[in-house]
Amino acid sequence: MTSTLPPALAALVAELRRISPIGSALALLGWDQETHMPPQGAGPRAEVLGALTEVHHERSSADALGERIAAAEEEVAGGDPRWVALVREARRDWERTRRIPSDLAQEIAVASSRSLMAWRGARAADDFQAFEPHLTAMVSLKRRVAEALRDGDGSLYDTLLSEYEPGMSAEVFQGFCDAVKPRLVALVAEVAPRCARVRTDFITRDHDPDRQLQFSRDVLTAMGYDLSRGRLDLTAHPFCTGIATPHDVRITTRVDRNDFNCNFFSVIHEGGHALYEQGLDPEWSGTPLGAATSLGIHESQSRYYENVIARSEPFWVHWLPRLRAAFPGNFDDVRPEEFLAAVNCVVPSLIRTEADEVTYSLHVMLRFELEHALFEGSLEVADLPDLWNRRMKELLGVEVPCDREGVLQDIHWSMGAFGYFPTYFLGNLYGAQIDRAVRLALPDLDEQLARGEMGPLREWLGREVHVRGREFPSLELVREVCGEELDPLLFVEYLEEKMARFHPA
Amino acid sequence: MTSTLPPALAALVAELRRISPIGSALALLGWDQETHMPPQGAGPRAEVLGALTEVHHERSSADALGERIAAAEEEVAGGDPRWVALVREARRDWERTRRIPSDLAQEIAVASSRSLMAWRGARAADDFQAFEPHLTAMVSLKRRVAEALRDGDGSLYDTLLSEYEPGMSAEVFQGFCDAVKPRLVALVAEVAPRCARVRTDFITRDHDPDRQLQFSRDVLTAMGYDLSRGRLDLTAHPFCTGIATPHDVRITTRVDRNDFNCNFFSVIHEGGHALYEQGLDPEWSGTPLGAATSLGIHESQSRYYENVIARSEPFWVHWLPRLRAAFPGNFDDVRPEEFLAAVNCVVPSLIRTEADEVTYSLHVMLRFELEHALFEGSLEVADLPDLWNRRMKELLGVEVPCDREGVLQDIHWSMGAFGYFPTYFLGNLYGAQIDRAVRLALPDLDEQLARGEMGPLREWLGREVHVRGREFPSLELVREVCGEELDPLLFVEYLEEKMARFHPA
Repeated sequence: MTSTLPPALAALVAELRRISPIGSALALLGWDQETHMPPQGAGPRAEVLGALTEVHHERSSADALGERIAAAEEEVAGGDPRWVALVREARRDWERTRRIPSDLAQEIAVASSRSLMAWRGARAADDFQAFEPHLTAMVSLKRRVAEALRDGDGSLYDTLLSEYEPGMSAEVFQGFCDAVKPRLVALVAEVAPRCARVRTDFITRDHDPDRQLQFSRDVLTAMGYDLSRGRLDLTAHPFCTGIATPHDVRITTRVDRNDFNCNFFSVIHEGGHALYEQGLDPEWSGTPLGAATSLGIHESQSRYYENVIARSEPFWVHWLPRLRAAFPGNFDDVRPEEFLAAVNCVVPSLIRTEADEVTYSLHVMLRFELEHALFEGSLEVADLPDLWNRRMKELLGVEVPCDREGVLQDIHWSMGAFGYFPTYFLGNLYGAQIDRAVRLALPDLDEQLARGEMGPLREWLGREVHVRGREFPSLELVREVCGEELDPLLFVEYLEEKMARFHPA
Repeated sequence: MTSTLPPALAALVAELRRISPIGSALALLGWDQETHMPPQGAGPRAEVLGALTEVHHERSSADALGERIAAAEEEVAGGDPRWVALVREARRDWERTRRIPSDLAQEIAVASSRSLMAWRGARAADDFQAFEPHLTAMVSLKRRVAEALRDGDGSLYDTLLSEYEPGMSAEVFQGFCDAVKPRLVALVAEVAPRCARVRTDFITRDHDPDRQLQFSRDVLTAMGYDLSRGRLDLTAHPFCTGIATPHDVRITTRVDRNDFNCNFFSVIHEGGHALYEQGLDPEWSGTPLGAATSLGIHESQSRYYENVIARSEPFWVHWLPRLRAAFPGNFDDVRPEEFLAAVNCVVPSLIRTEADEVTYSLHVMLRFELEHALFEGSLEVADLPDLWNRRMKELLGVEVPCDREGVLQDIHWSMGAFGYFPTYFLGNLYGAQIDRAVRLALPDLDEQLARGEMGPLREWLGREVHVRGREFPSLELVREVCGEELDPLLFVEYLEEKMARFHPA
């Protein structure tokens, strides 16, 4: 409890809580920008974000904060491991902030903004060449960031990857890919042809948007998402944001009246993120113990709810009758096995965000391979499109007809977010491992799901994963939670079993 | 134009624009709190507001800002009067901020928040005694604020009044009241009995909420409110807020399906505020020349649109047929003169915010009289309820049945906003004076309104009032705009004529 901390730690926590409200304001400004801001508010909004980022940076890198960290380190050494973790993470944040020269931070902010705009234009026009100089500039700037951030002469790519997934390295990640990739490719080859015969007509029927939102909200509430600490709004791209974790955690979604999957699975996905944020410890809010530990663990929660839970048979035992009632006529002629086959359909395709659960990880591995090569110096930006197209053919067997549906499809690189993509695949691996622990702890999980009970699952995840905050980096957290090392093959085995069940030969 | 300013002024403007984004963030946090924030976000929100208020205060009172002001004063002396005004207002803001000791500011923030909560509880419970100690504390704290802020041994009340209406004094305001009050009282006595016979059944028919909002939005758009720089949301209490003036100016409203007036006139009122904010000069945004000059002038714009325009005959020549079409059946049996009599009905009542145009100013004068006496030392907080009830009887002839509908009805005093109420009445006076100038400039205004044309009116107000920002304090601005001194009797004459027309003997 933060009310009975020793003095130096208490002083550090107080100082950290002078920074976190600035982060909250930034989060709200970002959320509003996507949900409610009138179009002409964009210009001044950039200035407001810039001004608050400056305040945030000042406070996060202040000498006084460093002094408090040093005092707390001395005080907690050898004591409560949570306290030690808090101080360790506070030091990590402080040092990373101080290592980026402020002129480089400024330069990146300006270049990212330009690059993002150039990417939007280039994607719309299917013109990679228009984007190429911006992407080259972003690679070069992020190289300088990595040089500033790295310890000693560590790998530049690992340094960037660690910004999203502390402690992860390209080598470890490559090992996971090597273990999983061949079996995923084989699974796609086996299942995709069968999926061509799967009936999906009911997914694309006319589903009233208000009813879609109400149905999604009902499932969210059953999952345990607390609407008194959150809300659901509409945006072009769904996201989850902790405005003031865990008290104000908002999600957004989109609705397509002719695609049931679009709204429903995005809400469940963002709901998984939101449960993590709402499950963080309010006692430690504003400190590293009250924050998510990595994007990979975040993604493990969202993808677990979206795929492992909400595309499972027991889940729909409870929800399919409710779905039929919510959309009169639209699902009356659909048998449960038809519904499950449809929402688990495997179709190699061009766009990552629309990919199924099996091919999704292959999309991510492609991006890792390319961005890693860019930072290792074995690939030039100009050669990206050709390599992208070639590797898409090899991995997924699809022909890329244009860069808009190829190398230009994702926003990440345009903002300089190199090292981000791996966290999506890691989320799948962590989720499969955590699922094994969940089922040992809750042997009747399937019966619970079939009765619509999702409380015990959320409570278990809350206790084992959410509430720990940044006490452990992700691989250690998985070990703590599961009592064993991460085994990347669990994820493949889970998929192989699932596909054999829903798409039998 | 700010791109070609002399160097010291340019440096001052740059420094002011490091402060205004913090104000924008505060405005967004406030807007979100009323419109979208989930209930449990309230606790951390208070901390975020506190942290940003601290940043705002630091920057607004910094020594460096004072140095830039001094340098700019020297540079612009005797030059462009707009530049001189900018520097004068920047100095005024800087000095006011520095005069409040930061411990007093902290104390007030805490006490206001407690007092506001106590007021909500006391109003709900109709228990003035529960609120009394908080109100006493707020009077005492604001007395200390006024002592810190005043020049020399100036009047404490005048100092507080000047926070909302720079340059206004109790003496001048009292003079306006003395001129207007007897004729208003006489007008109420004459007209109210006739209004008892006015037909109002159609106002309280069942009006579909979505159609109400759409109709209000149509009128807003015709007024010239630019939705690409704003939006309309629902809240318990309507308001207008400039998130990033003039690029992002939002209004809120409420809807009662059994009261047409509730939504419609509140939207037009807030729309008048919003036109002022959207009409401020984008070239000078973030400086005093890009900000509203006073609450009284603000209120002159909102009340002008709400009352002078939207309760007028020519306005409804255009809009009544559209109202009938928007609410099939609800207004078909209503003749124009019946409609105008209904929306201009005079009924002495208990609640200021629901008062008609004639009695409204009497409600305000009562509050001025009481708060002025509190600060002059001639009235104790404990004696407020009795005096309130006695004066309501004398001014409006109504019996106050309980403090909830009497002295506890308004939020202002609970937050320490003494000196705020007069601006509502001043808005009426300024509006009547400005109306005379409008009609000299636009002799065919009534014909334009009857054709649904509100563009020329907005353009004239934009050019003459809005775009000037804080170049002139309010009475000087009125003189500039109208070419004559404010004559408080114009407002009474306007009402007398209007009532004679809509409620003939």
